[in-house]
Amino acid sequence: MSDTIDRLTRIIAERRGADPSTSYVAKLTARGRAKIAQKVGEEAVETVIAAVAGDRAGVTAEAADLVFHLAILLADMDLGFADVLAELDRRDGVSGLVEKAARSPE
Amino acid sequence: MSDTIDRLTRIIAERRGADPSTSYVAKLTARGRAKIAQKVGEEAVETVIAAVAGDRAGVTAEAADLVFHLAILLADMDLGFADVLAELDRRDGVSGLVEKAARSPE
Amino acid sequence: MSDTIDRLTRIIAERRGADPSTSYVAKLTARGRAKIAQKVGEEAVETVIAAVAGDRAGVTAEAADLVFHLAILLADMDLGFADVLAELDRRDGVSGLVEKAARSPE
Amino acid sequence: MSDTIDRLTRIIAERRGADPSTSYVAKLTARGRAKIAQKVGEEAVETVIAAVAGDRAGVTAEAADLVFHLAILLADMDLGFADVLAELDRRDGVSGLVEKAARSPE
Repeated sequence: MSDTIDRLTRIIAERRGADPSTSYVAKLTARGRAKIAQKVGEEAVETVIAAVAGDRAGVTAEAADLVFHLAILLADMDLGFADVLAELDRRDGVSGLVEKAARSPE
Repeated sequence: MSDTIDRLTRIIAERRGADPSTSYVAKLTARGRAKIAQKVGEEAVETVIAAVAGDRAGVTAEAADLVFHLAILLADMDLGFADVLAELDRRDGVSGLVEKAARSPE
Repeated sequence: MSDTIDRLTRIIAERRGADPSTSYVAKLTARGRAKIAQKVGEEAVETVIAAVAGDRAGVTAEAADLVFHLAILLADMDLGFADVLAELDRRDGVSGLVEKAARSPE
Repeated sequence: MSDTIDRLTRIIAERRGADPSTSYVAKLTARGRAKIAQKVGEEAVETVIAAVAGDRAGVTAEAADLVFHLAILLADMDLGFADVLAELDRRDGVSGLVEKAARSPE
């Protein structure tokens, strides 16, 4: 799995600087951070709808779109999945997912 | 990074069956798929807001929450990040992110 | 304002039965409730982004899109703004917005 | 219906300046625009979920929450439903909802 995330990260880094007329990543990036963030929100909504409809193939496809656009957003902020996963590690290491256990789901 | 995702997947699988009074994952899972999906939507909204506000630490924290809740949702549908990343690999392998390049960001 | 909501309600009721090739309302309705709901989610995300960016004209335009698509969704469930406003009235009448005051914003 | 929207607008205008310890509107407003916007996004997600689940009572309640929080957000930007409905009127008057008919639902 690490390979896929590494490759995704590398592809996005490369494409950001590509010609917007041939690269989706470059085109979306050129439209600005608000537009990238909007796509993250939209793909999340689609993931939510597929989940509530019990559509497993739909959730797989929409979650892939969500992860893909989240990777573009992170790159636009000079961040990457490595930072996000380090944050998850940190929580798990310090007070961890145990900290989560103390929270109400509300 | 693979280690973190593997550990996250394992922790969620374990916690799903735990006592809802001590585990956030068990408590949220017990509330049903719509509630888990709602949390994914909410964390995506928070990620979007932090991004538009240019808050890097906020995006890192909210994206971690998003990935965490997406993992819980995937587990609830008997899916995992392995399936999502395989879908990203498949796109990259076949028509790939090139397929994406053909799409308009709209 | 009542006139606008009444007219919006009437227009959507008429257009639902129109030819999908000439009417946006008919075309979206034909794609099913999940697609209409998705548009509501997307317009909400756009409203949120415009608000955080401090874009007043953007919020006005996106909130109009949100209200428009919410009206289409309500119609698809055989509901209307009259039901939503009656619900707001009921809350205000009984325990009212005071009930809200007791809740935490979290 | 106009009465409800007028009353909602008036109540929110009054409550914005109230004591945050007794008023939900004042408390949420004090937390800032991003927090109000977040609530709009969350209530939209809940509306979407209720709609896809075919839950009419749920949609009525969540759409009421959505309209309520949208009114708080509009007030925070020195806007109101009057502006949003004027925008809908303007579209209907000029190129109107016909303009919408020309758009693809995508």
